[in-house]
Amino acid sequence: MSEFDLIYRYFATKFPQRSDVEQGIGDDAAICNIPPNMQLVTSIDTLVAGVHFPLITEPEDIGYKALAVNLSDMAAMGATPVWMTLALTCPEVDTIWLQKFSEGLAELAQIHQVSLIGGDTTRGPLTITIQIAGLISFNTAIKRNGAKPGDNIYVTGTLGDAGLGLAAINQQVTLSKSANQYAISRLNRPTPRLQESHDLLGIAHSAIDISDGLLADLGHILEASNVGASLQIDNLPLSTVLCESVPYETALNLALSAGDDYELCFTTSQTLDSYTCIGKIEADLGLRCLTKEGDILTPKMVGYQHFF
Amino acid sequence: MSEFDLIYRYFATKFPQRSDVEQGIGDDAAICNIPPNMQLVTSIDTLVAGVHFPLITEPEDIGYKALAVNLSDMAAMGATPVWMTLALTCPEVDTIWLQKFSEGLAELAQIHQVSLIGGDTTRGPLTITIQIAGLISFNTAIKRNGAKPGDNIYVTGTLGDAGLGLAAINQQVTLSKSANQYAISRLNRPTPRLQESHDLLGIAHSAIDISDGLLADLGHILEASNVGASLQIDNLPLSTVLCESVPYETALNLALSAGDDYELCFTTSQTLDSYTCIGKIEADLGLRCLTKEGDILTPKMVGYQHFF
Repeated sequence: MSEFDLIYRYFATKFPQRSDVEQGIGDDAAICNIPPNMQLVTSIDTLVAGVHFPLITEPEDIGYKALAVNLSDMAAMGATPVWMTLALTCPEVDTIWLQKFSEGLAELAQIHQVSLIGGDTTRGPLTITIQIAGLISFNTAIKRNGAKPGDNIYVTGTLGDAGLGLAAINQQVTLSKSANQYAISRLNRPTPRLQESHDLLGIAHSAIDISDGLLADLGHILEASNVGASLQIDNLPLSTVLCESVPYETALNLALSAGDDYELCFTTSQTLDSYTCIGKIEADLGLRCLTKEGDILTPKMVGYQHFF
Repeated sequence: MSEFDLIYRYFATKFPQRSDVEQGIGDDAAICNIPPNMQLVTSIDTLVAGVHFPLITEPEDIGYKALAVNLSDMAAMGATPVWMTLALTCPEVDTIWLQKFSEGLAELAQIHQVSLIGGDTTRGPLTITIQIAGLISFNTAIKRNGAKPGDNIYVTGTLGDAGLGLAAINQQVTLSKSANQYAISRLNRPTPRLQESHDLLGIAHSAIDISDGLLADLGHILEASNVGASLQIDNLPLSTVLCESVPYETALNLALSAGDDYELCFTTSQTLDSYTCIGKIEADLGLRCLTKEGDILTPKMVGYQHFF
């Protein structure tokens, strides 16, 4: 089977068709139309087997997650995702694997109406690269560099669950069946916070998605905005599953430092009810983690970084 | 070193800055502006070490070629390249390798004024994925499906040289020093035919770049356009080096079937002096290779396909 057949057979027909795509898969390049007064927002993310997902991960979940992490980048900007391209490197033509992978990918693409407009299929070690394209009205994107002293720092959802799932897979912790299911689902099928992001346009001063861990990613906001922050770590949103599965200190460390949650961390001068306020932006540079007793806590881990 | 440092240190500063890039590397996604009346043209291509380039290839050449094959896709559409994103997977942080790779990549980016607007750096087997973005005036893109019976079929440059270079690396042929230098250069540093492509806007009815071999790639035009063709194979443009290095039949087979030349194959109703006419589009489906004696030749190889 040629790479062309492969793309057509497993991928092209499962994805939403959009009227702004003049030419999708099937030529040397795709051709798309950008509405007037909109800007193009793009990001690229690679998942390497054994590095970004455990080798035992189901192909449906790999497909789902590969798109989810890219959609999360759109959420971090406040952009609406519209098109994607897929560069798939795999060791062989495993039709069952491809069928399942494409189903997981298409499932999430359908939810957010993202078209697959192009791709490249190559032979080699399993690696999935997706480039996502989104649209946003001129000058409304939420960037990392807009945090201001006095801003409240919020996060969506709960933190540390994906880290718990990875710890379970690595047999560092033993979970109940339901806890395991929840944590693995949070690891394999993160929810890109696109609705929340959309609601935050005009409200958030800065935002980032938490892929490498709260401390590392909030650190990027602080650096880009040239500000510091105090975190009230006892305010971190922890799921019941996380709290019941590991000691409190471990839960905090996972919430602070484990990656892969893909929740949003954002700052705003407003007070919001729908999200958890975890601290404040301050003029003093540096990131201070405070307990409710006011002690300064030094977290055991820093966020996940490749090449460590 | 974190992936962020890595991207900043080796890549960000070497590339052209463009005023249409509002946000480049350094946030969750890039933000770019599309001029009114222009369409966005995008393509993604992956190079896997040992599959798309020999393992002994110099890092400068890998960088150069990774962009060249993507620019070639822009040329095949008639688009002007503007921005690129790079997803680089490599087994370790080899600063000398990264330095050289980025130099080769930036060298070609500078020639065509392509900005690097984003990237992802991951640990794993050496794989380079580039997504290229280009612009084109509304409804002027040259597609594969526009070939008409009676069209002349043209190619740019000469064919089979990259195949000769690969044969030399694989020790299937022994070349003189200068011939070797020429053939390896054609393999490692293909010239994206962007100027020719621009000149063909409004003239070419269909076009494709020759990445998988003339027969395979012309085959895509024929299939998309629902037409056939006769090729005068004695008219194929062969370099002096190719003709002097291998028997004529081998030269023809390389010109017909070896990939990686990244010349353009296009069809037009006009008669052009600057390119080599190699045949005619016909209503009869199928691709007929004719010798100057009028015999039908059956080529020994078909174009390169992954997963064969």
